[in-house]
Amino acid sequence: MGEPKIVALGGGHGLYATLTAMRYLTRHVTAVVTVADDGGSSGRMRAELDVIPPGDLRMALAALMSAPAALADRAEGHDRDKRTLWADALQHRFRGRGALAGHPVGNLLLAGLSELLGDPVAALDELRDIFGVDGRVLPMSLVPLDIEADVSGLESDPRISRCIRGQVAVATTPGKVRRVRLLPEDPPACDEAIAAIGAADLVVLGPGSWFSSVIPHVLVPKQLAALRHSSARKVLVVNLAPESGETPGFSVERHLHVLHAHADAFRVDHVVVDSASVPAGREREYLERAAAKFGATLHVGDLAVPGRHVHDPEKLAHLVRGLYEEE
Amino acid sequence: MGEPKIVALGGGHGLYATLTAMRYLTRHVTAVVTVADDGGSSGRMRAELDVIPPGDLRMALAALMSAPAALADRAEGHDRDKRTLWADALQHRFRGRGALAGHPVGNLLLAGLSELLGDPVAALDELRDIFGVDGRVLPMSLVPLDIEADVSGLESDPRISRCIRGQVAVATTPGKVRRVRLLPEDPPACDEAIAAIGAADLVVLGPGSWFSSVIPHVLVPKQLAALRHSSARKVLVVNLAPESGETPGFSVERHLHVLHAHADAFRVDHVVVDSASVPAGREREYLERAAAKFGATLHVGDLAVPGRHVHDPEKLAHLVRGLYEEE
Repeated sequence: MGEPKIVALGGGHGLYATLTAMRYLTRHVTAVVTVADDGGSSGRMRAELDVIPPGDLRMALAALMSAPAALADRAEGHDRDKRTLWADALQHRFRGRGALAGHPVGNLLLAGLSELLGDPVAALDELRDIFGVDGRVLPMSLVPLDIEADVSGLESDPRISRCIRGQVAVATTPGKVRRVRLLPEDPPACDEAIAAIGAADLVVLGPGSWFSSVIPHVLVPKQLAALRHSSARKVLVVNLAPESGETPGFSVERHLHVLHAHADAFRVDHVVVDSASVPAGREREYLERAAAKFGATLHVGDLAVPGRHVHDPEKLAHLVRGLYEEE
Repeated sequence: MGEPKIVALGGGHGLYATLTAMRYLTRHVTAVVTVADDGGSSGRMRAELDVIPPGDLRMALAALMSAPAALADRAEGHDRDKRTLWADALQHRFRGRGALAGHPVGNLLLAGLSELLGDPVAALDELRDIFGVDGRVLPMSLVPLDIEADVSGLESDPRISRCIRGQVAVATTPGKVRRVRLLPEDPPACDEAIAAIGAADLVVLGPGSWFSSVIPHVLVPKQLAALRHSSARKVLVVNLAPESGETPGFSVERHLHVLHAHADAFRVDHVVVDSASVPAGREREYLERAAAKFGATLHVGDLAVPGRHVHDPEKLAHLVRGLYEEE
């Protein structure tokens, strides 16, 4: 069996971890990245330039560059040290207290190149080529998106729900997020991402900020259709720790219900959960039933870095490899 | 005879033209660039970050990348179209009206990488490597410099001279610049530039803003010493057109006198002048005498792009090749 073609869907640090993990399995990784961020450097840049927010795209590129890629060393013409140096450069945030402070170099490079070429996909491909990256990084949509959420618990009457707009506002609301929408509602998908999903052997969704990085991937109609029609094996990786803000105190089961409520036609083959998040006895049955709503089997394993609430890339890679090879 | 090792000293658009010209003659071009700019993007960046002004360095790098380099095509692993695309990317200035507007992408990339590595020479070498540039770009000094000038004609009494500080202020003064100094006065030279001058077959100084891009190169004591001791053939290329601001109405002869007055120990072998700038008869004798102060012979040729006050790189290359081969 050759190296599988893997598509990883997500955003932010969750996607970074998945990409690092998937690089243990193959050189053929395509990252498809949410573009709804309106905070930090990305927020500043989308406010002043006509570009999709570059932050999560940059982070995905850096993940593919700096991954502990035994495989990548086979690539010709680029040695590993140089790629690591450039990954560090893309991630480096300007110091000082001025207008540039806090902008990662890679955000500026990607936004500038996108502005010059008039096409973020072309810009991402040029960056991939110059840095000798094997995989590919693509945006979920070619236009900047916004997230809007129905949030309850912001009024004294808990039945009253308010509409909160913006990724940062949604991620930090003290209320309870009930439902999210993308604005525009039917955003243009990225053709290259659709094609990659169609050609994939394996698609991985999550982990990540559930409402702002994971669920958006099933809210782009054309991308959801591609996921439904793809013959790839599909794996959903559930978060380790409840996020403060978006999903405080959410159980794994609740994560699954919420995703299902946003796209009941979405199917996956495997739901992957860290053993520390899985309750014993009857509750585990509920969880299996929640996974079954997606047509999925539940896979529980030790996935965390000890003492930290982050996935260990090697452990995740090992579990996912097992799922892929069992076919 | 192999390809000569050429060092080009200057800054700004003048150096860009020289570098483009020298690429016709060799792959071994080292640019040594003034770092006293305090205007535009460079000025904004040196005000907020602890970096040498990146603008002229970026422009020199772009010149080596986008030059019509028949020679460069021999370089392996990088094709010419890609280098041209990246040269355009380095030169691309952010649009919009925000905090980034007007910053060239290459300035941000160079400054960010310098900040990360703590060393502008290392940053420039990494950029050279990733973009597959044959030559090398080096700063004249490792610290940001300031220019200070004695300027007359700012008071009603023309004998009164005032001290004006800053490259932009000096370049745009309505007064007459008499003398410039660097601050700090004995700036640390760049060791790699000193070594390149020592190993060069040919050194070219100018054209460029005379007081702020050309004369500074003889005001760094260690660099002046390296120029004096180098066995390279030395060529001084005088500006075509009097600059508004710094040198309005300056004759070629005046250019030579002013340079000599700043460093009377500086010697060159050839002074190169465009035929349109050279007066006839007696005045030409004065010019030859001015060149002789440097120990130089005068070379007059058609060097301009017709109808424009810029050097034609091919014409300049042709004349300089003649000087080099006559040896």
